[in-house]
Amino acid sequence: MKVVCTLCGGASSANVLQLECPDCAGPLRLAESARLAGCDFSKFANIAGGGVWRYRELLPLELEALPITLGEGGTPVVQLHRWGAEHGRPALQAKLEQLSPTGSFKDRGATLLFSALAAAGVQEIVEDSSGNAGAAAAAYAARAGMVAHICVPDSAPAAKVAQIAAYGAKIVRVSGSRQDVTDAALRIASKEVVYASHNLSPYFNEGLKTFAYELFEHYGSKLPDHIVFPIGNGGLLLGAAYGFADLLSWGLITRSPSLHAAQAANCAPIVHRFLNGCTAASSTYCPTIAGGVAVTNPPRMSEILEVLHTSGGLALKVGEEDIRRATESLAKLEGLFIEPTSAVSFAAAIQLYDSGVIRVKDSVLIPVTGSGLKDSFDQDSS
Amino acid sequence: MKVVCTLCGGASSANVLQLECPDCAGPLRLAESARLAGCDFSKFANIAGGGVWRYRELLPLELEALPITLGEGGTPVVQLHRWGAEHGRPALQAKLEQLSPTGSFKDRGATLLFSALAAAGVQEIVEDSSGNAGAAAAAYAARAGMVAHICVPDSAPAAKVAQIAAYGAKIVRVSGSRQDVTDAALRIASKEVVYASHNLSPYFNEGLKTFAYELFEHYGSKLPDHIVFPIGNGGLLLGAAYGFADLLSWGLITRSPSLHAAQAANCAPIVHRFLNGCTAASSTYCPTIAGGVAVTNPPRMSEILEVLHTSGGLALKVGEEDIRRATESLAKLEGLFIEPTSAVSFAAAIQLYDSGVIRVKDSVLIPVTGSGLKDSFDQDSS
Repeated sequence: MKVVCTLCGGASSANVLQLECPDCAGPLRLAESARLAGCDFSKFANIAGGGVWRYRELLPLELEALPITLGEGGTPVVQLHRWGAEHGRPALQAKLEQLSPTGSFKDRGATLLFSALAAAGVQEIVEDSSGNAGAAAAAYAARAGMVAHICVPDSAPAAKVAQIAAYGAKIVRVSGSRQDVTDAALRIASKEVVYASHNLSPYFNEGLKTFAYELFEHYGSKLPDHIVFPIGNGGLLLGAAYGFADLLSWGLITRSPSLHAAQAANCAPIVHRFLNGCTAASSTYCPTIAGGVAVTNPPRMSEILEVLHTSGGLALKVGEEDIRRATESLAKLEGLFIEPTSAVSFAAAIQLYDSGVIRVKDSVLIPVTGSGLKDSFDQDSS
Repeated sequence: MKVVCTLCGGASSANVLQLECPDCAGPLRLAESARLAGCDFSKFANIAGGGVWRYRELLPLELEALPITLGEGGTPVVQLHRWGAEHGRPALQAKLEQLSPTGSFKDRGATLLFSALAAAGVQEIVEDSSGNAGAAAAAYAARAGMVAHICVPDSAPAAKVAQIAAYGAKIVRVSGSRQDVTDAALRIASKEVVYASHNLSPYFNEGLKTFAYELFEHYGSKLPDHIVFPIGNGGLLLGAAYGFADLLSWGLITRSPSLHAAQAANCAPIVHRFLNGCTAASSTYCPTIAGGVAVTNPPRMSEILEVLHTSGGLALKVGEEDIRRATESLAKLEGLFIEPTSAVSFAAAIQLYDSGVIRVKDSVLIPVTGSGLKDSFDQDSS
């Protein structure tokens, strides 16, 4: 198996311990393997049970290795009639990724990354995260019998930190910027303590591809016209894009949905670059209630921008009040208790309707990326 | 469709608004309908997607009615190698019911009950719950566009109450005993405000049957030898028992697993009656960290005792320290962040091994009934 640098295009052998291009330090992506040519997807219909590992033969893990799994994947798709009607829009659909073992879509990536790490004999890891990825890393490390160090920003929600601690991970609280948290993880990393970065590991991204595979099994070739992702590091958008690229290369679909990137206006570096070009100066940053998208410098920025352009998607930003309102109204109208990060996409979808980018007859899917049980603001309990 | 009284055996027409026998006020159960005779279960293998509503033709909802669904059911089964080994026992298996839309198994019952209530034109409901059932009722009421009043005990965990409030339900806090909470709900109930009791409604119980149906689809006729349930009101145990009874009547299995009832020693009325007979004086009650099993007077007591006797199961109790230890060790060894209520069953399973009731070669399944994100005690975050 090979990895390819997403910046310089250089290829090298895949190795779960390698996180950047040996030549230019760019982010890596697993190259498509010959075994995938002409994949007959219909065989999966005969595999009982849902979840990420039904696609095992497509995933980069040796057949003799034991998956580290908590039953992730196989999340339901539901219609949102009432929320759509409230906004004078047709029903949207949502894929409920918060119904994952640790409460977010990160489990799709973590199951593959930690399976590969376990197969490589790794016994101790470090990861940096504002919450969801840290919980996933801590849980899958626990299940694999690894010691985990999780560096979290001081501002991480208490419920997320408590969850990470429950899995037995060693919590390292870091004040300062998000980059300071990453730097703390890099200082802990050593030959014995592997940096299991959900942002940099190409294995993590490969697991996220299953989001697209599941949509294909659910919809067949009639995929939604638009998918709107909340974007921090852009993991799920990239995973989905690469999954759709697989389906295109196998001749199973003829076009990808338009993949849109939604950010909080208070932290919108991707929107800024999308509108102003890749060489634009950095954008400003303010705190946001959507903690999962509060990433000022996503390492896979150029990949994200390319996916938006290739799929015909846009990058757009939404205000705090719109995020808050969408979070509350989805719970009250649809019974969906989601974290504010996920609500960013719903607020953005309304903008896309208003601007005519999404037409009334188009079909729209939004991933609910994380659970309100882990991150919610005070709500009216009258 | 008919309902049958579980005390006097009297039959009457099924009506989603009726919660007790018109003759003796006993709890009701839906009678098996002729349409179920000789059910060909293999057809379900061809229905794509998981979840409760794949069994729609078995569920008591008119075909023209719209299910009120959040994608509940279809929960994964995972092996617990490391936790079993830590206790010198073989791997147990767990079915992860906490990966349900509102974070507990109650969603299986709520989806059916609220679908039937919506089909009957109900617009406002009241429910009493210490947490999980209240969250399920609030979410499904929101999705159906109903106003919900949820009576909760003062002692309900803050995260559970916050979740119920997020769905827009009106929270009614009640001090005193669990019975006082039920009495408060009964005072609110009226012709316009329907008492949507998860304990009393036979429709709620019918939805819980799908737990057994899914196990049959997962295991085929080689079902686990033992299932150990944490028991408060006993809903999931009864639902499973009635589901297995269906499978027996259709000739698809030849025996039910042994269904065991695990309670916290601090609140163990079912264990008390199981050991001392149905006419024994009430047992004592102390608070327990396993809030979901803190039920002093379960209305379906006689049904529960009958299921235990019929299936060859036992009732047994576990101490607070064992509950705490199981909660912590499941997170740290297996990456399962569960509520203490669920841990009662794991602690009880060890007792059943120790006493020889479960033999080393037997297969054992435990449902994880609720999420640690909703109810956890302080854990060491070092």
